[in-house]
Amino acid sequence: MKQETIDRIRKFTDDRDWEQYHTPANLAKSISIEANELLECFQWSDTQYDIAEVSEELADVLVYCRNMLDALGLDEDEIILRKMAKNEAKYPVEKAKGKSTKYDKL
Amino acid sequence: MKQETIDRIRKFTDDRDWEQYHTPANLAKSISIEANELLECFQWSDTQYDIAEVSEELADVLVYCRNMLDALGLDEDEIILRKMAKNEAKYPVEKAKGKSTKYDKL
Amino acid sequence: MKQETIDRIRKFTDDRDWEQYHTPANLAKSISIEANELLECFQWSDTQYDIAEVSEELADVLVYCRNMLDALGLDEDEIILRKMAKNEAKYPVEKAKGKSTKYDKL
Amino acid sequence: MKQETIDRIRKFTDDRDWEQYHTPANLAKSISIEANELLECFQWSDTQYDIAEVSEELADVLVYCRNMLDALGLDEDEIILRKMAKNEAKYPVEKAKGKSTKYDKL
Repeated sequence: MKQETIDRIRKFTDDRDWEQYHTPANLAKSISIEANELLECFQWSDTQYDIAEVSEELADVLVYCRNMLDALGLDEDEIILRKMAKNEAKYPVEKAKGKSTKYDKL
Repeated sequence: MKQETIDRIRKFTDDRDWEQYHTPANLAKSISIEANELLECFQWSDTQYDIAEVSEELADVLVYCRNMLDALGLDEDEIILRKMAKNEAKYPVEKAKGKSTKYDKL
Repeated sequence: MKQETIDRIRKFTDDRDWEQYHTPANLAKSISIEANELLECFQWSDTQYDIAEVSEELADVLVYCRNMLDALGLDEDEIILRKMAKNEAKYPVEKAKGKSTKYDKL
Repeated sequence: MKQETIDRIRKFTDDRDWEQYHTPANLAKSISIEANELLECFQWSDTQYDIAEVSEELADVLVYCRNMLDALGLDEDEIILRKMAKNEAKYPVEKAKGKSTKYDKL
């Protein structure tokens, strides 16, 4: 995400005095709620979806994720790179290649 | 997200031949599933949570969001800026300031 | 649900002194969390699933729904029959038959 | 749930020819989507909620759970009683009493 985009999200919250609602717990609920509006685009069909609606709902998920990073003072790249290292260890290429099996059943 | 982080996520999928599972519908399910592992950190308390677990689950949400942007060929900043313009119009500062009311009840 | 089943659920909570955690908000989170463990059974395939796992996760959703009915003093049949009347009005047979279209686009 | 309520739900689906959409995977998505409309009632406050809205959303979750039991030919009491036996073993009263700790950390 570009700094300009991050700033626009922060200004939106700031202008409305909404930091008070952005507790980590409320943001976790919000991410799940928006993730399910995204899921609703695929409720009855996996292949027929409205790309404009999907884009909007995915954007909403990403905005709340940005709010949560801010509320907790986390660095996006840092937490992702640390998790990717774990994922790489949990799913060794030679075992996981081409399979959707969960790590505890690999 | 830095290009290095995006590349690490793409290589992880690519090395395991997992693009085949990354349909938009499967990724929408995955975002919701990970969002709920994040929510589980706050299941019984809003204030006592393990920041390391929260960081990992938030990272998982962000990784699947990145996968979905890739699967659909969407630009993160573009879809967010377009949605922010809508949000700004739906929640005018003078009406929404300091209130958590949903736009259709403002 | 039979009275015996309801009693077993209530005794489980009661024996563990867990009513204190069963606020409506915590139960709403719990229903979503369990619903997503159910969804995880279908994460990468719509047709290959483990019926034993599906049954367990669906049971967990139903147990938390029962806890929520109890926490709020609601009658299951009453709230469902009232909602079914609304659904029947929102989706008139002649318009909705054979279509998965949402009511606001019918 | 009373037989009358179950029959009303089944007739609703049947009248609209909607069994075709009621695959287990679509119903799992639907349960999660409705669970999150329920969660939305508590998005910004744990204590201020609209009981009429909560009742409607909880009813929607229960209706889709009923649809899923039907789609899979499962007996509600049977799957719940089987799961309760597991839960009772996972959370022994003497260890779990008064604590919200997850079983794997008890």
